[in-house]
Amino acid sequence: MTLADLSSGIDTVWVVLTAAMILLMEGGFALLEAGFVRQKNAVSIIMKVFVDISFGALLFYLVGFAFMHGKDVGGLIGWSGFTMGGDLTHLSLNISTDTFWLFQCAFVIAVISIVSGAVAERIHFRAYIVYTILMTGLIYPIYGHWIWSSSGWLAKLGMIDFAGSAAIHALGGFAALAAALFLGPRLGRFGEDGKTNIVPPSNLPLASVGAFILWFGWFGFNAGSTLSATNPNIGHIAVTTLLASAAGCAACILFTMLRYRKADPPMVINGALAGLVGITAGCAYVSDAVAILIGAVSGIAMVLASEWLEGRRVDDPVGAFAVHGVSGSIGTLAVGLFAMPGTAAYSGLFYGGGWHLLGVQALGLVVVAVWGFALTWIAFRLINAWRPVRVSKDEELVGLDVGIHGVPAYSQEHDFLDIEQLRKR
Amino acid sequence: MTLADLSSGIDTVWVVLTAAMILLMEGGFALLEAGFVRQKNAVSIIMKVFVDISFGALLFYLVGFAFMHGKDVGGLIGWSGFTMGGDLTHLSLNISTDTFWLFQCAFVIAVISIVSGAVAERIHFRAYIVYTILMTGLIYPIYGHWIWSSSGWLAKLGMIDFAGSAAIHALGGFAALAAALFLGPRLGRFGEDGKTNIVPPSNLPLASVGAFILWFGWFGFNAGSTLSATNPNIGHIAVTTLLASAAGCAACILFTMLRYRKADPPMVINGALAGLVGITAGCAYVSDAVAILIGAVSGIAMVLASEWLEGRRVDDPVGAFAVHGVSGSIGTLAVGLFAMPGTAAYSGLFYGGGWHLLGVQALGLVVVAVWGFALTWIAFRLINAWRPVRVSKDEELVGLDVGIHGVPAYSQEHDFLDIEQLRKR
Amino acid sequence: MTLADLSSGIDTVWVVLTAAMILLMEGGFALLEAGFVRQKNAVSIIMKVFVDISFGALLFYLVGFAFMHGKDVGGLIGWSGFTMGGDLTHLSLNISTDTFWLFQCAFVIAVISIVSGAVAERIHFRAYIVYTILMTGLIYPIYGHWIWSSSGWLAKLGMIDFAGSAAIHALGGFAALAAALFLGPRLGRFGEDGKTNIVPPSNLPLASVGAFILWFGWFGFNAGSTLSATNPNIGHIAVTTLLASAAGCAACILFTMLRYRKADPPMVINGALAGLVGITAGCAYVSDAVAILIGAVSGIAMVLASEWLEGRRVDDPVGAFAVHGVSGSIGTLAVGLFAMPGTAAYSGLFYGGGWHLLGVQALGLVVVAVWGFALTWIAFRLINAWRPVRVSKDEELVGLDVGIHGVPAYSQEHDFLDIEQLRKR
Repeated sequence: MTLADLSSGIDTVWVVLTAAMILLMEGGFALLEAGFVRQKNAVSIIMKVFVDISFGALLFYLVGFAFMHGKDVGGLIGWSGFTMGGDLTHLSLNISTDTFWLFQCAFVIAVISIVSGAVAERIHFRAYIVYTILMTGLIYPIYGHWIWSSSGWLAKLGMIDFAGSAAIHALGGFAALAAALFLGPRLGRFGEDGKTNIVPPSNLPLASVGAFILWFGWFGFNAGSTLSATNPNIGHIAVTTLLASAAGCAACILFTMLRYRKADPPMVINGALAGLVGITAGCAYVSDAVAILIGAVSGIAMVLASEWLEGRRVDDPVGAFAVHGVSGSIGTLAVGLFAMPGTAAYSGLFYGGGWHLLGVQALGLVVVAVWGFALTWIAFRLINAWRPVRVSKDEELVGLDVGIHGVPAYSQEHDFLDIEQLRKR
Repeated sequence: MTLADLSSGIDTVWVVLTAAMILLMEGGFALLEAGFVRQKNAVSIIMKVFVDISFGALLFYLVGFAFMHGKDVGGLIGWSGFTMGGDLTHLSLNISTDTFWLFQCAFVIAVISIVSGAVAERIHFRAYIVYTILMTGLIYPIYGHWIWSSSGWLAKLGMIDFAGSAAIHALGGFAALAAALFLGPRLGRFGEDGKTNIVPPSNLPLASVGAFILWFGWFGFNAGSTLSATNPNIGHIAVTTLLASAAGCAACILFTMLRYRKADPPMVINGALAGLVGITAGCAYVSDAVAILIGAVSGIAMVLASEWLEGRRVDDPVGAFAVHGVSGSIGTLAVGLFAMPGTAAYSGLFYGGGWHLLGVQALGLVVVAVWGFALTWIAFRLINAWRPVRVSKDEELVGLDVGIHGVPAYSQEHDFLDIEQLRKR
Repeated sequence: MTLADLSSGIDTVWVVLTAAMILLMEGGFALLEAGFVRQKNAVSIIMKVFVDISFGALLFYLVGFAFMHGKDVGGLIGWSGFTMGGDLTHLSLNISTDTFWLFQCAFVIAVISIVSGAVAERIHFRAYIVYTILMTGLIYPIYGHWIWSSSGWLAKLGMIDFAGSAAIHALGGFAALAAALFLGPRLGRFGEDGKTNIVPPSNLPLASVGAFILWFGWFGFNAGSTLSATNPNIGHIAVTTLLASAAGCAACILFTMLRYRKADPPMVINGALAGLVGITAGCAYVSDAVAILIGAVSGIAMVLASEWLEGRRVDDPVGAFAVHGVSGSIGTLAVGLFAMPGTAAYSGLFYGGGWHLLGVQALGLVVVAVWGFALTWIAFRLINAWRPVRVSKDEELVGLDVGIHGVPAYSQEHDFLDIEQLRKR
């Protein structure tokens, strides 16, 4: 047993454990979304998360990882590491390629899960599978290469995004917006006379379980992104993560108490998540006080963005764009303002680093917004040309659980169902 | 990479991971409580847990940590480390201050969550926020200083409480008792003619999820309290934790089968938790066999205490006092009887240590009971002088979910709600 | 601080954390099963999981561990380590005996939980407690000794089973089959005229939470089985675990879309689990591509086995045999075909190792199937001679929650229940 063995061992278990925590976040996404949608669609949204993990992991294994972390081609794409084979020496890791792949795979699965919320209650399952393949095999890996491969063109400009406010959340958020716009609102969400109708969340305790699981996983997400257990910054990263989420949640509690005269449960739940999304880029670069600021701003912006989208008759059932797109954007830009000297190549505007970092962050953000939105729109058009991306009116009215998957989420039946009778239904 | 770097790294990831596990326990508290209360109050209790985390973390950051772990002033209070700044050299840690803070913050959030169960279904949300601020910023940190700061007066007397049967659970439990008494029973809980009415738990599977999550987090709570991955006692601590909870649970299964002629689900769930609470003080100091004894006694005492409280018409909706107050007291005293030689400065009465340790433990327990009860009572009086701590009769009857937060926990509505109609409700 | 201290410390925290993850799987089992059964039995199945943990841990402490990992007697049974005492030097561990015991205890609790699903909705609680004692104290430890003690007769022949496709899942699965056959189908499950009636799963979102928790815990199960944080294979083990589960899940999505013209939620959930069960034996020995193959085959075989069992009118409410028995068997045999050279004493048939390993794996599988099935059958006969293992017809019709435990799983009652009225029910 040598020091090097031990060092590699401790890094390995750190990364494997945090990767497992991130994968558990899929359970969080599933429950958050199932709790927010109507009861008749609670299983169908969970089935999408199963697609995220299963197809996502396989696609990332086959091609996504290679496009993202393979040997760089012109700063634009990676090209080695298909099925984890080929030359990956440029990664120069203290952990095995497998271990690194596992952590990266947990990330790609998170991205697609963000989109799953925005398309809830009306996307066809078949279409969702195809989109998942495109997102996890192509759309995310390529943008991911630009920013997280050391040879990516945005990385070379100096863009920083510690655990993915841009690469994960803004990408997922803008993709979610495109998907929500392409699909259009759910039937009856907006009345003909301009009335807005409210979705009754089917199961808020379940949605809360989801949020708590996501919260837990986020410590793996942010602190695990060090990829090294001896990084002296781990404690600080975990603390900024907690403080930002606390601030986002507290801000939403107080803000909704002032604005609606009640602490609004879905907004409080999403406020904690908005704080987490906002700090994801900067957790390693900003101070505790700034983390609180970022969290609070992200939380309030999420509430306002939700209202704004609703006012524009955009139907994003679980607030995917407001939480991930808006807070992810705030977090990406905040790094340009608040990155402390010595934490990255450039420091932020308010810390004497000038305009450079802010400019690069803004550029990267515009790029990710356009990339995520445009590629998703194109993907949906292509899929729609093959088979309709939206379920039929009948399927939507009866709900996707029974309409597409043939089984309700909840049953209070005391006895067995007669299979002959079921066939007649 | 040196041995010291590695040692600090491994301690850091150990503490960060166990802190994340403890924070996940908030999800456990939320679900346990939401499952035990009536459906009409399931969201409101979860919202309180969001208050615990968000306001708790911010207050502990601002002042609580300083009062608890700052530079000692007369054995009574700490006074440095506000927003983690100032002189904290007396802590002499192998991990960063951030990492240590994170773990301590997870603890304070647990304390306030214990109280949230006792005030369920009738406290006003606004009042709860103020109480949370007082508990996490003041009440807990000061008692915590007395016992867990090396210069605290109880610590100097030799009191030991490894992971907080006294500092966390007895404090939370006696505070919960004061809160339950101050608020009075829920409307209809006790009939006019002396009849006791039974609360129908709204969702026992959900309560069970909560218990399993708490169980998981407890391994972080107890074993993580070593703050060091190379503490040779870690395995033993985890084993006593498991054995005590198994014994508490098994004892409640058998005891309720004998007493009620059925294994009573809420009591079985709380029995496992009672065993966990009971072993929290002694997990590092007692033998496996004693852990089983402590767990079994804690479980049975919890059942009897629940009955006793009900007989006295005290309404503690989720059994916070029976689980945390009673078992926490048992665990605190048990250390005085069973601490093995060599594990702490003094050993227990049955291990040749004489009466000293038992006396100190009893003193510390009386102090925590009085402190937690009295300060909570005072806090509630002060809050009540400002705004009523209890919701109106109408709000209570309709339930806090709709009454205070404007949304039900569960909805089976198939369609959207018309916002105009909602306004008229 | 020496290298040896650090090495032992890092192994300890790795094993403790992964053991906690495995124990959390109990929550997963509970919810998966509670979600799959009818609402009237949702609490009773969760109560069984509480029995698994509590009685399981105590029995394994008293005798099970000694029979399994104690000093070998003739390759057949261990005989030291009762209550962790006596001579255990033959284990030659880098972690404390406590730590090793904890991990092993988490395994035994998993085995019995597999069986709990197969007996759902009709076993008497009392009988289940007795069976749990026999399984965790005797049946599993003895077979476990044969294969996982270095002196066990199957281990000496060269059988390999990294984390227990045979020792855990096939054993649990065949025991579950025996239990399901002994108890017979639930009333009304199969009509008199040959009709098969369908159980309406009471809560599929809850079942999904269970699956996600199990998925998370499985990384602890498989990767933690290295018992060493510096095992260079950890990353690979975690990756094969993820890929196999992804393949099992994706295969079930596509296969059920082809076969039933809908992605069938319960089958998709069980498909992910089948992939996990299948890779459990080989996670450390097979390649990524083979892991995908094993996962996909396990998933499809699970669907077919479920149909086959139903066709034979065997009632296994949550598919315990199809998931654990069938996929466990596939995983055990797959090692004989695909074990890569250098990963174990013998390599698989397709890797130039000849027929030896496949033969030994097949032998071990037959032994575990017979052992698990026969001992369970005998145990049920003995228990049945004392008291009926099956509840009365009335209790089954009203449901075990109210019938045996006196409380429903879910309640929408708005007010308190009058205890006098309850008594009259």
